[in-house]
Amino acid sequence: MIEDKNQPRTSLSELGEFGLIDHLTKNFKINHNSTIKGVGDDGAILNFSNRQIVVTTDLLVEGVHFDLSYMPLKHLGYKAVMVNLSDVYAMNGAATQITVSIAVSNRFPLEALEELYEGIFAACEAYNVDLIGGDTTSSTKGLLISITAIGEVEKGKAVYRNTAKQNDLLVVSGDLGGAYLGLQVLEREKQVFEVNPNSQPDLTDYTYLIERQLKPEARKDIVKLLKELEVKPTAMIDISDGLSSEILHICKQSKVGCNLYEEKIPLDQQVISTCEEFDLNSTTVALSGGEDYELLFTISPNDFPKIKGNPHLTVIGHITEESEGVNLVTRANQKVALTAQGWNALNKN
Amino acid sequence: MIEDKNQPRTSLSELGEFGLIDHLTKNFKINHNSTIKGVGDDGAILNFSNRQIVVTTDLLVEGVHFDLSYMPLKHLGYKAVMVNLSDVYAMNGAATQITVSIAVSNRFPLEALEELYEGIFAACEAYNVDLIGGDTTSSTKGLLISITAIGEVEKGKAVYRNTAKQNDLLVVSGDLGGAYLGLQVLEREKQVFEVNPNSQPDLTDYTYLIERQLKPEARKDIVKLLKELEVKPTAMIDISDGLSSEILHICKQSKVGCNLYEEKIPLDQQVISTCEEFDLNSTTVALSGGEDYELLFTISPNDFPKIKGNPHLTVIGHITEESEGVNLVTRANQKVALTAQGWNALNKN
Repeated sequence: MIEDKNQPRTSLSELGEFGLIDHLTKNFKINHNSTIKGVGDDGAILNFSNRQIVVTTDLLVEGVHFDLSYMPLKHLGYKAVMVNLSDVYAMNGAATQITVSIAVSNRFPLEALEELYEGIFAACEAYNVDLIGGDTTSSTKGLLISITAIGEVEKGKAVYRNTAKQNDLLVVSGDLGGAYLGLQVLEREKQVFEVNPNSQPDLTDYTYLIERQLKPEARKDIVKLLKELEVKPTAMIDISDGLSSEILHICKQSKVGCNLYEEKIPLDQQVISTCEEFDLNSTTVALSGGEDYELLFTISPNDFPKIKGNPHLTVIGHITEESEGVNLVTRANQKVALTAQGWNALNKN
Repeated sequence: MIEDKNQPRTSLSELGEFGLIDHLTKNFKINHNSTIKGVGDDGAILNFSNRQIVVTTDLLVEGVHFDLSYMPLKHLGYKAVMVNLSDVYAMNGAATQITVSIAVSNRFPLEALEELYEGIFAACEAYNVDLIGGDTTSSTKGLLISITAIGEVEKGKAVYRNTAKQNDLLVVSGDLGGAYLGLQVLEREKQVFEVNPNSQPDLTDYTYLIERQLKPEARKDIVKLLKELEVKPTAMIDISDGLSSEILHICKQSKVGCNLYEEKIPLDQQVISTCEEFDLNSTTVALSGGEDYELLFTISPNDFPKIKGNPHLTVIGHITEESEGVNLVTRANQKVALTAQGWNALNKN
């Protein structure tokens, strides 16, 4: 979204496809020895010697995954990279390269794409990732971003979803529900703005939530932390669709059950107060909100002393036999079956 | 497109995102030792030991790159893979894996995506490529396909665009202009059909052209042939945008000039006869038509005896000093500067 309506608008057709790629990527630097050849040929050439490679890809569509009326393009570029890096970290990998393809309608001037690439650039800088290629094309409607992220992982160190074991502890990084509530706050402000374009929103009570929505950070630090603590998770996934959905993925693929303890789910104070304000159940928000980009993993109970008391990590449950099912143990100590939508008991409301 | 209007239509929402990926990819097999983990986790895990890796990506948008009124979905799936593999071969690599992401509007039933994936499956089978991941999402309009192809290449064997040398010979595989003319024939038939839906098109005179447009093949065989002939091209690119544009890429990036001989450009008999019928200049079509997915490369003159007389390869010019410029030498032995659009003299018409 272009806030200053008087800023220059350069038509994309003035550059042509090749000029556009050159222009948008000219500030990007190659930092990794594994990048032999980046942007500018039919393909990139990479060399990982004896390490294994992680490949992951995500597609973000305007009107489905983002709304440019409150998502600044620079933030969108940053977030689009985070969404992909998060998947690399969830494999216990180190992200090293990305390709970025975009389809844009002619309503976007060059300056809009420059903003988008500023965010992509900031993400590449902050996470030490090389942009090695991509494609730009016109679309018949809206903006679409397709990113493929590549990373490296030592042989035998990749962590899958299907390897959780009975008695393992279920651990999550950071806290949950913030990104979803940030979206609710932004949606409300959008509606207020549509009614009264002169309204000045006071968002100081929601800064953390809005940052979680507009500028999420992938948990590169957690992968590093676990390595330092000498903890190799037995299974790992990132939380893009909500805690509930991700626990179910791990349990289904690992053929195990799980008890998740409601009282253990980590929530920020802003999440709790905003849930009260919006009359939402904070557990439901954490279970089903999504977009938190935290890491959810299981560890051997023997590793518990290594993570105990770490402020970035919370033990929220434990793995059981498959026959016991996947359950939320409520604060009232009742067991309720978890569903991909969150929680049956609440869905009935 | 769905030709039988009575065939079943299953709404995509009946499956959900995860069910959809599982359903569409269930027949795909993993063939490469380098694929350690394919579809089904946050990312794929690959292992190329000491070989280098080629990564390339392309985005195809309905209404921009394809028209479903004459492009069957199965062919579209096949072609989308070819477009990407062609880039891997143009790096002198062997394609080994792809990721496929699609965005689809709700006008597409499950059966349409099954057709698309049948084509992707056929391409993976024919070219021995593993599908290792992807993303499916809804779009607000139309169909969009984003593919990333990964390949391997021995250290030092990758061939770039920027390494052509003076006196090298310019060589092209196959013949040119067919795909563009196939598109013209299909566009004409579409217009006829719109006027008279009962018309029965007779396309027997254009079978080669239509196949070049609807079912192009990437030139994996040429990479293999060159290896057998012990010819390592000095520079290589695939012809996606037209011969002229690709020659200019090689010359600009290699800082050389080139003489291209009009009389040497390989044309199929159907290209020649259809150009006459459509009143098009066949040289212009070959230079600017695009979508031929042939390989254009330069070789040392010392290698000429190795390729001489090979029916798959045609020497069409030679590399000169940069100061001599990039020229077409016409049948009348006139030198005309090449432009990305083809040929200045013709563009003035």
